[in-house]
Amino acid sequence: MFPSHIHVERRNRLQAQLQSGVLLFLGNDESPMNYADNTYPFRQDSSFLYFFGVDRPGCAALLDLDDGRCTLFADDLTLDDIVWTGRQPSVAELALAGGVAETAPAAALEARLGQLQGRPVQFLPPYRVEHQQKLTRLLGLAPEAQAARASVPLIRAVAELRAIKAPEEVAELERAVDVSVDMHLAAMAMARPGVREAEIAARVTAIALASGGALAYPVIATVHGETLHNHHYENVLQDGQVFLLDAGAESARHYAGDLTSTCPVGAGFSPRQRDLYQVVLATHLAALDQLKPGVPFRAIHLAACRTLAEGLKDLGLMKGDPAEAVAQGAHAMFLPCGLGHMLGLDVHDMENLGEVWVGYEGSPKSTQFGLKSLRLARPLQAGFVLTVEPGIYFIPELFQRWRAEGRFRDFIDYAVLEGYQGENGFRLEENVLITPGGHRILGKARPRTVPEILAARA
Amino acid sequence: MFPSHIHVERRNRLQAQLQSGVLLFLGNDESPMNYADNTYPFRQDSSFLYFFGVDRPGCAALLDLDDGRCTLFADDLTLDDIVWTGRQPSVAELALAGGVAETAPAAALEARLGQLQGRPVQFLPPYRVEHQQKLTRLLGLAPEAQAARASVPLIRAVAELRAIKAPEEVAELERAVDVSVDMHLAAMAMARPGVREAEIAARVTAIALASGGALAYPVIATVHGETLHNHHYENVLQDGQVFLLDAGAESARHYAGDLTSTCPVGAGFSPRQRDLYQVVLATHLAALDQLKPGVPFRAIHLAACRTLAEGLKDLGLMKGDPAEAVAQGAHAMFLPCGLGHMLGLDVHDMENLGEVWVGYEGSPKSTQFGLKSLRLARPLQAGFVLTVEPGIYFIPELFQRWRAEGRFRDFIDYAVLEGYQGENGFRLEENVLITPGGHRILGKARPRTVPEILAARA
Repeated sequence: MFPSHIHVERRNRLQAQLQSGVLLFLGNDESPMNYADNTYPFRQDSSFLYFFGVDRPGCAALLDLDDGRCTLFADDLTLDDIVWTGRQPSVAELALAGGVAETAPAAALEARLGQLQGRPVQFLPPYRVEHQQKLTRLLGLAPEAQAARASVPLIRAVAELRAIKAPEEVAELERAVDVSVDMHLAAMAMARPGVREAEIAARVTAIALASGGALAYPVIATVHGETLHNHHYENVLQDGQVFLLDAGAESARHYAGDLTSTCPVGAGFSPRQRDLYQVVLATHLAALDQLKPGVPFRAIHLAACRTLAEGLKDLGLMKGDPAEAVAQGAHAMFLPCGLGHMLGLDVHDMENLGEVWVGYEGSPKSTQFGLKSLRLARPLQAGFVLTVEPGIYFIPELFQRWRAEGRFRDFIDYAVLEGYQGENGFRLEENVLITPGGHRILGKARPRTVPEILAARA
Repeated sequence: MFPSHIHVERRNRLQAQLQSGVLLFLGNDESPMNYADNTYPFRQDSSFLYFFGVDRPGCAALLDLDDGRCTLFADDLTLDDIVWTGRQPSVAELALAGGVAETAPAAALEARLGQLQGRPVQFLPPYRVEHQQKLTRLLGLAPEAQAARASVPLIRAVAELRAIKAPEEVAELERAVDVSVDMHLAAMAMARPGVREAEIAARVTAIALASGGALAYPVIATVHGETLHNHHYENVLQDGQVFLLDAGAESARHYAGDLTSTCPVGAGFSPRQRDLYQVVLATHLAALDQLKPGVPFRAIHLAACRTLAEGLKDLGLMKGDPAEAVAQGAHAMFLPCGLGHMLGLDVHDMENLGEVWVGYEGSPKSTQFGLKSLRLARPLQAGFVLTVEPGIYFIPELFQRWRAEGRFRDFIDYAVLEGYQGENGFRLEENVLITPGGHRILGKARPRTVPEILAARA
């Protein structure tokens, strides 16, 4: 990871915020696929990486803020292990790299916790079953009781620290975005009639892996962009369709890029596809214009929804007052999700800490369809990195349900919308750093306008 | 998966073997990477695929052999789910595809088990923490008690059924091997000075994904082939090195290919590399010759070790009587693992059921270094599919330890061996079906001899 002093400073800032307490950080273990030793690529917990820089399965760390003691619990390899895995850094070397002074065998953690004489142990919410099992064993907490027992002060402190990206983190995010741009350029050049989605997903994956990193999240490579998280690749691209790629690389230091492109499969967009894409692009550019410290992202999301609704009204798909339509949630027929989210070590940064803390500063989220999927609402700060990703989606099940229920008839022209079924999905996504004066788009330039997209495919 | 009647027949054969009892099969869940909703590609449990054909997370099945009742427990998607995932087959459709007559919500399983009035529930050994958590919740078993409580009759019956591959399974395995051959041909053509291991691993991965399948296991693409399970790709290939690829595709129906190639990075092998590769090839061909029903694979492994030891003696690395060297385990300095293993839905087929049952028919495994890593020892049967994968490895830590301990000085010439340190690792691996008359190598032809390897790189 980064030089050891960076991890030391991060822990010092955590100490300065919390002052007192015992903090338990659980690293991740290997995740078995179809038997114990056939594992997925290891992914360390992001907060563990952030504070300790230790990128190995089977670790835990204990940070006692009252006496400053910091211990890495992990086991060295045996000769039998080394025959299979080769020489790996020792636990002492890993600790040194993370600026951690003390190490102990993994099994010693239980005894150490027993010596705390009733002092409460603070931990982050578990998101893997292995975390739950460990918290049961170490702290005697039933799995279903653990989320509620996670430490809110610790969550808030971690979320505040990780939300503001330091220059070395921005540089790393920019590396991830640069690789992600290469993935998108390759996909846009490949998207032609007769090509299979699986071939494009494979090519995009290879670019991420060849960079020395990984995928930040499962690739979406589809002619059914209306399915927001579509991880199937069974279709053959056909002339007249649009192809949507949502894919991002994870850098070697585990920072995420997250981009989306939409392009025609054939020589160009149909007039209708072009109109829809132009509405998305206009929404995107209008949203970018508003990004600066102090502005709540919820306000930018809602403004973007109004821009979108205005564009859809021009196309005859919506009607009435766009502002009122957005206030009531009618636009969510077309955009049932949020405008963007935090980006960092996780593609939905710190989602495991709880979106209410990360994106809402503890305020409750809306329960309105659409708005409830907005992951970030709080006022922006310089150092935030986030995605902006407006889209227009024609989701058959949503259309049929809402039309049958007669929902938002004042704002949605169902007769016109029926004629648009089969137009699938359009999205444009970029990654931005909030700067003191506004924002900066991360990574190298990539096609956004229709002419740029067509040129990238020439 | 396969047509429903195939799954019905497999369950009927299981019923015929076990006659009576209640069988609980736990499917796999999604595996989170860095937060709950950012998941690895889903991999269903192989026995669940085999008997039920249901390839979706969050499922369980109960098979009551006494009344023939078979129930799939799973939940349908909500409209909110469909917005994100698109329409998916219903639970009823999944059950129909697997020939299962009855479905119930996932939450109904607990109540169904409660109605069994104390009849014992048989289950397979858990290998994911999620299985352990479910068995605790459903059956009240502590995680550490579960492995010992897994049903040996069920394990044996499943292992016997899955060990004999039906024609449709052989066809699927052959598809996986064919894609795997393409992966190896691409890698051998790419392996040149200046190319990074990560680029080759990425290309190989892309070929598996583009085929519509996946990787059967993490790719080994390395100039350090002496590390048996080396999943690091940080090196740049250099003239004079050998490059080892151990990689296999998983077919769309989740059957595995598993091949290894070794090739020079530069224009050709050095004389010493060539000699070592020839010993591996001779061992491989001699082992293949002995494959036929009735012959214990342990005997073939030991014969292969003797061939290897003879070759190493010719090179001056070993000395004394090769048969005695192998009997004592001295050859394990060079080949610390087994000659091969079962192959099927899992790359180490059914490893989760326990190698003692799958490969040893319940007899204990050897504790001798080397032989203890032999996964398959039992007499071969027509319909077995297995790997043959001899190798020679120069593992520095093993060399240093054994030399310091003075082990096997009568059989290993440490002075000569010291001069071979840095020669890394050589392996050749193919996948074979045991036929009534002998064996058949699966998949299309691929380079094995030195001239064939050099030609593949021209």
